[in-house]
Amino acid sequence: MKIALAQTNQIVADIENNKNKIIAFADKAYNNGAEVVVFANNSLQGGNIESLSLINGFYKMLDCALDEIKQTVSIPLILTANKNRKNIPVLIKNNNIEEIENKVITINNNKFYFVIFDDVKDFEKLYEDKNISFTDNLVILSCSFYYKGKTKYIRNFIKKFAKEKAVNIFYVNMAGAQDGCVYDGGSFSVLKSGNINNIAKLFDEDFLLTDTNVDNNLEYKTDLQEEMYKALVLGLKDYCVKNGFTKVALGVSGGIDSALVAAIAADAVGSDNVLGVLMPSKYTSKESVVYAKDLCNRLKIKYEIVSIENLYNSYINECSPVFKNTKKDLTEENLQARIRANILMAFSNKFGYFILCTCNKSEDAVGYSTLYGDMAGGYSVVGDLLKKDVYALANYRNSISDVIPEEIIKRAPTAELRENQKDSDSLPEYDILDDILEKILEKQMSYDEILNSGIEETTLIKVYKLLFGSEYKRRVSPISTKITETSFYKDIKFPMTNKYKICKKKN
Amino acid sequence: MKIALAQTNQIVADIENNKNKIIAFADKAYNNGAEVVVFANNSLQGGNIESLSLINGFYKMLDCALDEIKQTVSIPLILTANKNRKNIPVLIKNNNIEEIENKVITINNNKFYFVIFDDVKDFEKLYEDKNISFTDNLVILSCSFYYKGKTKYIRNFIKKFAKEKAVNIFYVNMAGAQDGCVYDGGSFSVLKSGNINNIAKLFDEDFLLTDTNVDNNLEYKTDLQEEMYKALVLGLKDYCVKNGFTKVALGVSGGIDSALVAAIAADAVGSDNVLGVLMPSKYTSKESVVYAKDLCNRLKIKYEIVSIENLYNSYINECSPVFKNTKKDLTEENLQARIRANILMAFSNKFGYFILCTCNKSEDAVGYSTLYGDMAGGYSVVGDLLKKDVYALANYRNSISDVIPEEIIKRAPTAELRENQKDSDSLPEYDILDDILEKILEKQMSYDEILNSGIEETTLIKVYKLLFGSEYKRRVSPISTKITETSFYKDIKFPMTNKYKICKKKN
Repeated sequence: MKIALAQTNQIVADIENNKNKIIAFADKAYNNGAEVVVFANNSLQGGNIESLSLINGFYKMLDCALDEIKQTVSIPLILTANKNRKNIPVLIKNNNIEEIENKVITINNNKFYFVIFDDVKDFEKLYEDKNISFTDNLVILSCSFYYKGKTKYIRNFIKKFAKEKAVNIFYVNMAGAQDGCVYDGGSFSVLKSGNINNIAKLFDEDFLLTDTNVDNNLEYKTDLQEEMYKALVLGLKDYCVKNGFTKVALGVSGGIDSALVAAIAADAVGSDNVLGVLMPSKYTSKESVVYAKDLCNRLKIKYEIVSIENLYNSYINECSPVFKNTKKDLTEENLQARIRANILMAFSNKFGYFILCTCNKSEDAVGYSTLYGDMAGGYSVVGDLLKKDVYALANYRNSISDVIPEEIIKRAPTAELRENQKDSDSLPEYDILDDILEKILEKQMSYDEILNSGIEETTLIKVYKLLFGSEYKRRVSPISTKITETSFYKDIKFPMTNKYKICKKKN
Repeated sequence: MKIALAQTNQIVADIENNKNKIIAFADKAYNNGAEVVVFANNSLQGGNIESLSLINGFYKMLDCALDEIKQTVSIPLILTANKNRKNIPVLIKNNNIEEIENKVITINNNKFYFVIFDDVKDFEKLYEDKNISFTDNLVILSCSFYYKGKTKYIRNFIKKFAKEKAVNIFYVNMAGAQDGCVYDGGSFSVLKSGNINNIAKLFDEDFLLTDTNVDNNLEYKTDLQEEMYKALVLGLKDYCVKNGFTKVALGVSGGIDSALVAAIAADAVGSDNVLGVLMPSKYTSKESVVYAKDLCNRLKIKYEIVSIENLYNSYINECSPVFKNTKKDLTEENLQARIRANILMAFSNKFGYFILCTCNKSEDAVGYSTLYGDMAGGYSVVGDLLKKDVYALANYRNSISDVIPEEIIKRAPTAELRENQKDSDSLPEYDILDDILEKILEKQMSYDEILNSGIEETTLIKVYKLLFGSEYKRRVSPISTKITETSFYKDIKFPMTNKYKICKKKN
């Protein structure tokens, strides 16, 4: 039997265009001899609609579009439809819409069972469910987000599933990105043999035709860094494209974070559409300016230079009656970061640039950033990358073409907001910080376990304190591409008000 | 029988102090002759713990504290405990902890049934549940948020419930505020007669002793404006107190929003701890300065004046090489708002003031605000009040003492970011805007229904467009006290990327 999987990139609530794309893919399936075509979950509504569900009239529009599909297509078609504000799979066939939740359907003498899964973990529950007697073919309609390690996990799990239960499995996933969540595509089919029969592109639209009578036994390797980089590019690209932003701008400091963000931006929207803004102060080293210019030249992006020196002095002047007899402190450092944000936002307002934020996850975790300063921007491009992953992906990108100057990768991280400042003055070295953050967030190790793994106690307590104390900043961070299962943007929200203290055993 | 309800104000994850308060209230109940004492849901953990549930060690701390309570108290005590990361009611008695979910418990020959409800709507489900045979006494352990109309609804519903099912009902709710959500307290008991027997304070800790043999038949009236105002004060107060902020500052413009916020702030943290900052520009009218000073004087709060004129000129100077040959536009308006934010944040950094944001819900709904400008601040005090409620509560506050100058209430709203600017240049008049917003968000009327209610089509389309187009701003708004069931902070999240177009019937 020939089954088509339609891996489309849709836009939330763009029902007219989503419908047209569904019809076009159905036509393609029909013309290619498929006997049935299956769409990812949410293909018509375009993704998670959140509170649009409260808007009176929205579901009526969906129903109208479904009716049009019904009247138009010439091939049995499976997609998800809304029933009482819940998604269910339906079969559209012979100008009829049939609800097919929790039942076995026969198409051309082949038996099918259809399930909707957006959460990868639900696969495991299905696998363990003793109440389902698996039939010839299991089809999974998914609208699930990318995270590091997901593609490998899903493929291995479904291969095992198919072989053990002796069922052909078809996994069809959405492609594209929505508000920082990347639907990674990568639809595939696995035969009863446990062999992958056919596999779609990651991070892009694709059309997959599987003939269950031919065992292709495909091999498929994953390269984690390539996946992560592509997810970052797509996350930013689709946010810009789907929201009508054609040009982006960012502050380039000569540091590694803005260098990687500039590279991702150039790959997402094209070098011609990226502007780097250099905003030196008296604390900015000559090298920083040299490296930043070198980066822009290698990436073939334009740059502008606006000094913040006079502006900084104006603030100090205007505030001096109030601030007299006070010492220089964090105020003056944050002021510089906020002046830079104001300049970037003026570029945005004046010329329509969409502003990119260059904070990384290690900084966000401990609040090492300035509200309305370097945290400003419409999109935090690498906000779910620990510092070590920022370096790893910079090197990965350079392995394709040499766009990030080696000096930027090698220099010690600094915010350059005061004389001879280094990040390590305020924070543990990034390799230690990242290690602790992974242990708390990803491995969910307890305080004692982390201590016993060889982390110094004062450092550990400091990180806990900073982590739980900086939620207020993370709550107003720009959205960011989800890359891990523990993104601050999508997954981890601590109470802002909380007196969590480290759990210590009583002896 | 004598039953004590303990309405406490706890802090999330402050397990040691929460435990001590539970023990103190239990002692008080014992000393007052109660036969059992009941605590609100989440009393030990202190409220919703969100992602603290992922922190290895947290539940162990809860269990330790529960053990200490068990060993200490001399009266049967009901509270919620954690079981497999889910809350269940437990009875602590005779140095023993008994799980009492979904079963009838006998205490001193009286039968009890205990349920946990944080969502008011769950009361209705319980009422309609045919599988529960209600016994003599039903106890509801709640940790539920205030919203406009909630207290009246709950009291009437539970009175009806008690009378129809012939059951005594005890409703014990948390008091205090957590990250903008106000636990409104207002615990009460209703006898089988349907009469309220005893009722606790709203918005504060309280201890309630009910003797089921005495029918008090209390009357209780609600004043919506008083409730809303008190919720706003408590929301801000508890955020400050629980996070260690003793002083707050805000920009006072001479307009109604900042006037009401200043009044709420003075009531929340005391006049001595509030600073008003006047930041005039060349577009600021003389009256604005006069009114702002008058406000500060009436509220007995300090004020400082920092002109933004020179700073604004510095930005224009520094950006002029880049901005040459461009026209004056929104850029210059936003710049002023952002300079003001930078000054406020400098006050925060230098002197420890917690900065209050003065945006209201009507503005937030249509994005009539400046990112990193007037949207800056740690807490959006009236962010869930439509403009009409801002006026209503200003008048309510003035009815207690005359703190907001009448001229501020009477003048036309203006942002004063350009010559002779009025809010109505960019937006519909606020009475029309508020009417439309209520129809979309609260009444969930469809486009056609709103049109037929007499709203002009161009105005309606403009509001839909602004509402769906400004989600990106709302996602990075400061937290705000939830006052309605449709707060942007807690309830309504539209997809930022969305092509929702108004549903129009095909004719």
